[in-house]
Amino acid sequence: MDAALHFCRHKLLPKIGATATSFRCLSSCAHPRRAANGVAPPPTPLPLVSRLFQPSNLREGQESTELTCRSQRLMLQTGLLHPSNPGCFYYLPATVRSMEKLVRLIDQEMQAIGGQKLDMPALCAADLWRRSGRWDLMGKELLRLKDRHGIDYCLGPTHEEAVTELLASQANLSYRQLPLLLYQVTRKFRDEQKPKFGLLRGREFYMKDMYSFDVSEEAAHHTYQSVCQAYGRLFDRLGLRWVQVRADTGNIGGTLSHEFQLPADVGEDRLLTCGACSFSANVELVEEGRTDCPQCKSAGTLVESKGIEVGHTFYLGTKYSRVFQATFNTAQNKAALAEMGCFGLGVTRILAASIEVLSGDEGIRWPGLVAPYQVCVLPPKRSGKTTELINLAEGLAHQLASLPGLRGEVVLDDRTQMTIGKRLKDASQLGYPYVVVVGQGAAAAAEQQQFEVICQRAGETLFLTRDALTDLLSQVETV
Amino acid sequence: MDAALHFCRHKLLPKIGATATSFRCLSSCAHPRRAANGVAPPPTPLPLVSRLFQPSNLREGQESTELTCRSQRLMLQTGLLHPSNPGCFYYLPATVRSMEKLVRLIDQEMQAIGGQKLDMPALCAADLWRRSGRWDLMGKELLRLKDRHGIDYCLGPTHEEAVTELLASQANLSYRQLPLLLYQVTRKFRDEQKPKFGLLRGREFYMKDMYSFDVSEEAAHHTYQSVCQAYGRLFDRLGLRWVQVRADTGNIGGTLSHEFQLPADVGEDRLLTCGACSFSANVELVEEGRTDCPQCKSAGTLVESKGIEVGHTFYLGTKYSRVFQATFNTAQNKAALAEMGCFGLGVTRILAASIEVLSGDEGIRWPGLVAPYQVCVLPPKRSGKTTELINLAEGLAHQLASLPGLRGEVVLDDRTQMTIGKRLKDASQLGYPYVVVVGQGAAAAAEQQQFEVICQRAGETLFLTRDALTDLLSQVETV
Repeated sequence: MDAALHFCRHKLLPKIGATATSFRCLSSCAHPRRAANGVAPPPTPLPLVSRLFQPSNLREGQESTELTCRSQRLMLQTGLLHPSNPGCFYYLPATVRSMEKLVRLIDQEMQAIGGQKLDMPALCAADLWRRSGRWDLMGKELLRLKDRHGIDYCLGPTHEEAVTELLASQANLSYRQLPLLLYQVTRKFRDEQKPKFGLLRGREFYMKDMYSFDVSEEAAHHTYQSVCQAYGRLFDRLGLRWVQVRADTGNIGGTLSHEFQLPADVGEDRLLTCGACSFSANVELVEEGRTDCPQCKSAGTLVESKGIEVGHTFYLGTKYSRVFQATFNTAQNKAALAEMGCFGLGVTRILAASIEVLSGDEGIRWPGLVAPYQVCVLPPKRSGKTTELINLAEGLAHQLASLPGLRGEVVLDDRTQMTIGKRLKDASQLGYPYVVVVGQGAAAAAEQQQFEVICQRAGETLFLTRDALTDLLSQVETV
Repeated sequence: MDAALHFCRHKLLPKIGATATSFRCLSSCAHPRRAANGVAPPPTPLPLVSRLFQPSNLREGQESTELTCRSQRLMLQTGLLHPSNPGCFYYLPATVRSMEKLVRLIDQEMQAIGGQKLDMPALCAADLWRRSGRWDLMGKELLRLKDRHGIDYCLGPTHEEAVTELLASQANLSYRQLPLLLYQVTRKFRDEQKPKFGLLRGREFYMKDMYSFDVSEEAAHHTYQSVCQAYGRLFDRLGLRWVQVRADTGNIGGTLSHEFQLPADVGEDRLLTCGACSFSANVELVEEGRTDCPQCKSAGTLVESKGIEVGHTFYLGTKYSRVFQATFNTAQNKAALAEMGCFGLGVTRILAASIEVLSGDEGIRWPGLVAPYQVCVLPPKRSGKTTELINLAEGLAHQLASLPGLRGEVVLDDRTQMTIGKRLKDASQLGYPYVVVVGQGAAAAAEQQQFEVICQRAGETLFLTRDALTDLLSQVETV
């Protein structure tokens, strides 16, 4: 009632320059919803390893047929993925958690540069694709189907046609509203001839695709740079080494294109980098056999390396806006074609590629921000003497999970029929950034009490009091 | 450096009962990532109405052809949706925001009862569906396609086959690990003969589908109840009036089924409810023409009403686990078939149905928790005398957006070339739960300063000081 009275008092103050109002005071407005409609959010239960469907504890040794790269092997072994149709996978719960974090990061970066998120249909009318010429151009990579009325559709691998048609339908679009950056994070389809490397080259995958609309070529180039910078920031936040190389525009089209590549031997792209200047490009762009740099000429020699493409940017010009007549009104109130760009990030591919480049053979190492869980608490093996420590570990896990950034981020490895060593091995394979072992050191009195903390990223082990542990973990950045 | 020194001190304490450790102190572990990899998250820009692609400001009057219900009309008029192919829509940015909130609510409720989120391929092999018999049973509702090798697939409208196959592949599944509740929130496909009512009956839609696996029929019924309760809690938190009715099991199968219905005249389901007892059912389940209640017999009379189905639960028994041999190991170490349930929520349908039942003809009223934005700040119309107030409004919007629950939830209606009245009308149509008008009352000194706050839910207007406004809005629950 305090809040209600408080607001009532204010309502008695003189009204100045306001419209007509109603003055009932006992309404729900004066009792803001701490719990919407009187129902509190449910408590978040503590995840227990024994119940996680990510089952190194469920899973038999995986057959090693067709396992061709480290990330695929690790992701299958640790129960992150399960194979379905060729090039299609079940993403198991830990993968979904990781993917959702990656999507939140991408949202932050895209929205920071003005990106607005929408969601376009997966079914794309053949008619749209015929108008752009891509219905024929895409060949067998396009999954096609007919609906019950015999109308042709494809499952969109990208959405240039759809988004340009959407813009074209906005008759009153003004130059003042540009640039417009529209993006989505949706499941995409591409009927690869030979899907391989797990999530690196699948037939179904998640992609972030952004489309930009600008008033001029100059403005479009500015937008292009701004998206490239956001991509760079994203990969930096993930702690990944990346290179931006000039690339072919392929069947998307346009006049300028870059790929964002993670250097890796398993990568399917061959890159040429100059030792003397900033030149770097996909080999597709350089004449076969050329070894001198096209940019600084004789000064530099091109060195070849391999990369996994995780992002691709295109300056499209008016290629699509002309076809669909996507125009805006200029300051002179004339219709002009929007200058477009499109910008892709392979969401599931970034996950797999990160694991590929960061991990060792024995276990996964995640970019910290997208690890499925940040902390695993390990109680000792169950025996007559460890009951208290096991309870203490559970209490600790609850306490850590109540830290502001760690809600839902702490798992308890309750498989206390197993030795700590065996569970430590699992934890190391799964790649929790922090593993807290509750051993005999935790049995001491407060000032002497010690928890063993294995920090995967630094590759080191600390012994901390409860306060110091809480300090350390409360500073973990999560997303 | 303080943090590093702090941890170093602890490392010098005696090690007790711990494994070998490394003791480098200058590593990244002792400098927890406030900003991962040295890159801070980007600032979240304040959304400006003039730039939102949700464009009552962009959009021409919509043609009213085929607009058959309130939610579809309002969602098209306010730029929440744009039509694409029949039964397919572009979800524009405000809709995506709302949907993401609804998904977070659903996640909370499903995870509170032990649900684990995964993601299954949209492409479902015909072979799987032939084994369950549904390849033929589904008829024209199933969208079918062939890949480049001529293999048949459908686009999954539900995933009983896929998830049961996944479980069947877990050879070591123990009774200790059940119940297992696996769910996903993904785009589904159904080739409706006559898509209509916007998101209420589309060909592409988002659905939450959960599948449960239990050790016995009794345990499965317990799980069934627990999911039904979670559904009820969800609708309660959304502030929706709902009924749970007995329903037909249709082409999903099983022996027990309920629908969750929102009473609404536009609803396509006809429900019979008894005035004397708890009986309520879809008319499908009652003999045509019957007016007495099958449960309490002559005592009650059945009354017919209409509803929009927003959830559907099925007790499946072993219908699918038998086909795919999804077994677990019992306490006696024998293989037994899992008892299954499946549970659907129409995610996009819940959004549209909420708008349908809560809104008036003039504007949208959202369930507060899933409103795309919580607060709209309205500066006065631009003139020589209002510059200061306009700046003050912008500052206020930033201040409100920095409140813990309101990050990203505050928009500034910067279209100051328009009158307050015109923008208020837009705001009312879009249904912001709180609209803050910065008028002349805001020009006074602190104690006298007043902001007009229109609380949509309570249908009332308050006049608050800045502190009282901050108090009010800091208590708004967001998700």
